[in-house]
Amino acid sequence: MFSGLCGFPITPVRAQEIDHPTLGLLVSRIVSSGASSLGILGSTGGYAYLSRQERTEIIRTAAEFAVGTPILAGIGALTTDEVLRLADDAQGAGPAGVLLAPLGYHKLTPDEVFGLYQDVTGELSVPLCVYDNPATTGFSFSDDLYARIAELPRVAAIKIPPVPLDRDTARHRINQLREGLPEQLALGISGDASASVALSVGCQSWFSVVGGLLPKTAMNILTAAQNGDFQSSRALSKQLDPLWDLFRRYGSFRVISAAAEVMGLVGDSFMPRPLLGLDSAARQEVAQALLPFSSFDSV
Amino acid sequence: MFSGLCGFPITPVRAQEIDHPTLGLLVSRIVSSGASSLGILGSTGGYAYLSRQERTEIIRTAAEFAVGTPILAGIGALTTDEVLRLADDAQGAGPAGVLLAPLGYHKLTPDEVFGLYQDVTGELSVPLCVYDNPATTGFSFSDDLYARIAELPRVAAIKIPPVPLDRDTARHRINQLREGLPEQLALGISGDASASVALSVGCQSWFSVVGGLLPKTAMNILTAAQNGDFQSSRALSKQLDPLWDLFRRYGSFRVISAAAEVMGLVGDSFMPRPLLGLDSAARQEVAQALLPFSSFDSV
Repeated sequence: MFSGLCGFPITPVRAQEIDHPTLGLLVSRIVSSGASSLGILGSTGGYAYLSRQERTEIIRTAAEFAVGTPILAGIGALTTDEVLRLADDAQGAGPAGVLLAPLGYHKLTPDEVFGLYQDVTGELSVPLCVYDNPATTGFSFSDDLYARIAELPRVAAIKIPPVPLDRDTARHRINQLREGLPEQLALGISGDASASVALSVGCQSWFSVVGGLLPKTAMNILTAAQNGDFQSSRALSKQLDPLWDLFRRYGSFRVISAAAEVMGLVGDSFMPRPLLGLDSAARQEVAQALLPFSSFDSV
Repeated sequence: MFSGLCGFPITPVRAQEIDHPTLGLLVSRIVSSGASSLGILGSTGGYAYLSRQERTEIIRTAAEFAVGTPILAGIGALTTDEVLRLADDAQGAGPAGVLLAPLGYHKLTPDEVFGLYQDVTGELSVPLCVYDNPATTGFSFSDDLYARIAELPRVAAIKIPPVPLDRDTARHRINQLREGLPEQLALGISGDASASVALSVGCQSWFSVVGGLLPKTAMNILTAAQNGDFQSSRALSKQLDPLWDLFRRYGSFRVISAAAEVMGLVGDSFMPRPLLGLDSAARQEVAQALLPFSSFDSV
């Protein structure tokens, strides 16, 4: 499950409740694109803002529509106790693996983050993917910490932050990372704008925001890169440059949520206050950025 | 309540439960020092890691031991809905004001932070203090945003981050801030190491970590600064330099928790995993830094 595309759907909402039928539709789109896995309760799904019960129900719905595609479920929370409860809940709802970011209020030390993964993997019966997202957690992993955590049982993958867009620099970075890590550990890229580069220099997996909404387009980018056709992969990715630019300006969570609404795939998306959806001018930009892709990824 | 010392007690723990009698003792020490207010459920109290019920019980205990000293209670949470619930809970438990930091997972925009304060102050019946703590929230207020929020009803104070230790630079910064803000709005300093400087150049209040544990010492620093005797205030503050240095190296939450244990005031302090208490070598350093103050602040 830790190679290929992992598409992260947003959480659709109707009348302020989670819209499970529409979530099922989003999951089905990802499954039918040929994605390797489903990333449920990622940052894109707004996991940090959802209750335990909501999270379990979301995993159940995803499992129902996944028809065999493995599910990776986010279990991040502020305390280890809550992470362990969420891990239990998640494992009961049937995912193939779990995704864990080190959330913090008081800034965590490397030893504390190691301790979190040690405590959690000690209780797990499924593989774990380390989720390194400094933009949301405020915590940056060192390569040494990656290596320590990679030694723990059930640690199967790392979701790494964006790599440099220059391909040689990116290759150097991935090789450097690989040197310190067990061979069987998978590296997956997040940061959609750098995915075609990262996949072409040895990342096995793409943990993708856009792959949750435009999974066929994401599959085309991934397949070309993994088949050694970097030029085609990059050309496809470049067509999405206006979207990557919007991600940078407004945050991918707000942009992909607006995109799902603009495409008519969801009525509303989960945007818990104080977060605000994009205003109409920004929505226009999103609609413009999506124009070339509406036919690629028709329902 | 927004002038003078606001002492923030830690949350004591016994057998993994909150130790209310010992919390009462910590509160009593702050009250009897002559502090102007009590900062309950601040970062020092670990509010972000506590349940709704635990938070309400902590405010109730503080109110019981406050004997008229006004209580400022933290109501921060990740969603506006939860903040509103906590505001309701808190107001039912009797604080004189509330303290609110803009917590985030997805990075908040200035408009979203403004919207949070707008939504919350619209429902409040007590004064609110804006809590600006970029180190824990990842969000930095601009002076423009301060000014917008200061226009909202019931916004009475801002808990600002540390000012520069150079007194002229600090004075310039405080004057610059004052220019854009309503005259009646109080400015309170956090970042204990810069308190004597900030108080000597116009900050009315000190929101103090050390003031929750060594309130008499903190009162001496504050009183000298507010009486125009900056030299004495700075000299007293300099005696705490080893402690400020430990705050910088290990984080004030871990250090002040260890200090309370070293002083024998609490059995254990609230240190929710993945957070770890200081190791024995660091505890030695804490004990060393406290030596000159044990007699000042005897129980």
